[in-house]
Amino acid sequence: MKIGEGVEQAIHCVLMLSNLQPDGALPAAALAAFHGVKTSYLLKHLQAMAGAGLLASIPGPRGGYRLARRPEDISLLDIVLAVEGPAPAFRCAEIRQRGPNPLPAEFHRLPCGVASAMLRAERAYRAELATITIAELRGDQTTPLNQAINQRNCAFLDLHERAQTERT
Amino acid sequence: MKIGEGVEQAIHCVLMLSNLQPDGALPAAALAAFHGVKTSYLLKHLQAMAGAGLLASIPGPRGGYRLARRPEDISLLDIVLAVEGPAPAFRCAEIRQRGPNPLPAEFHRLPCGVASAMLRAERAYRAELATITIAELRGDQTTPLNQAINQRNCAFLDLHERAQTERT
Ligand code: FES
Ligand code: FES
Repeated sequence: MKIGEGVEQAIHCVLMLSNLQPDGALPAAALAAFHGVKTSYLLKHLQAMAGAGLLASIPGPRGGYRLARRPEDISLLDIVLAVEGPAPAFRCAEIRQRGPNPLPAEFHRLPCGVASAMLRAERAYRAELATITIAELRGDQTTPLNQAINQRNCAFLDLHERAQTERT
Repeated sequence: MKIGEGVEQAIHCVLMLSNLQPDGALPAAALAAFHGVKTSYLLKHLQAMAGAGLLASIPGPRGGYRLARRPEDISLLDIVLAVEGPAPAFRCAEIRQRGPNPLPAEFHRLPCGVASAMLRAERAYRAELATITIAELRGDQTTPLNQAINQRNCAFLDLHERAQTERT
């Protein structure tokens, strides 16, 4: 069982975008440079998150990505599902119907108990991810760690953030 | 996020083995035939479960696999960890330390909050899997479905189960 590394990148991108001004935007290339990953690879995840309504994609020379919702309204589950897709990790291949003399079809109307149990556990996983928001992950902004993170973010954004309107 | 199809096969193998007589054993080839999968592929998972102490591997012409613990003492978590390995699905690649001007190392002594949150959700997943045992999955043996499953299993075991001692 493995979650693609795109999830770590996507969550950190959303965290970075939560620092933008209301009319700000950050190009994919800047997000990629900040995280030390390839733009082409990151674009796939940014587009998936835009498609899921988590990010807005602003076109044009002042464009880029910004959050489409407040940080309180974006959960880790939203991001994981956008990047990894909605299919459950466990996929029942109906092994009970293979091999010699399988039971007649009427016995297979209900899902296999094994599949139900595996999916029950995934529901617990998803329920936990749904409780964790980007706002919560930003954390207490007064701790020395978060102040240092913010300083690094702001130094980068000063160079790369774009705005729809001229800043004074 | 995807769980290998070996997990479905492994759980169904353990369920099948839970029908054996106390001194019975079922060869890997019979388990593979019953589930319509390749023996070579299944062997990997059977050996992993034997290595994890869930199955016993009985050598010799009367040998094969049997449970090494009672069905009440084998959980879905035991099987998933044996087959998929103990590593968590989310693997933090320390993306926070990449890109321009990363924070000095002393800020990275604690795990990233994102990684901690993802692992918290996995703990909820594993806790749920740990509560589900093979005994529970065998279910109420008097339902028509379970009676039909048992009949199919027994017909197969009559042909393929091996015993350490002569049956009378
Ligand atoms: S048939 Fe797929 S989990 Fe049982
Ligand atoms: S650095 Fe890996 S999850 Fe944040």
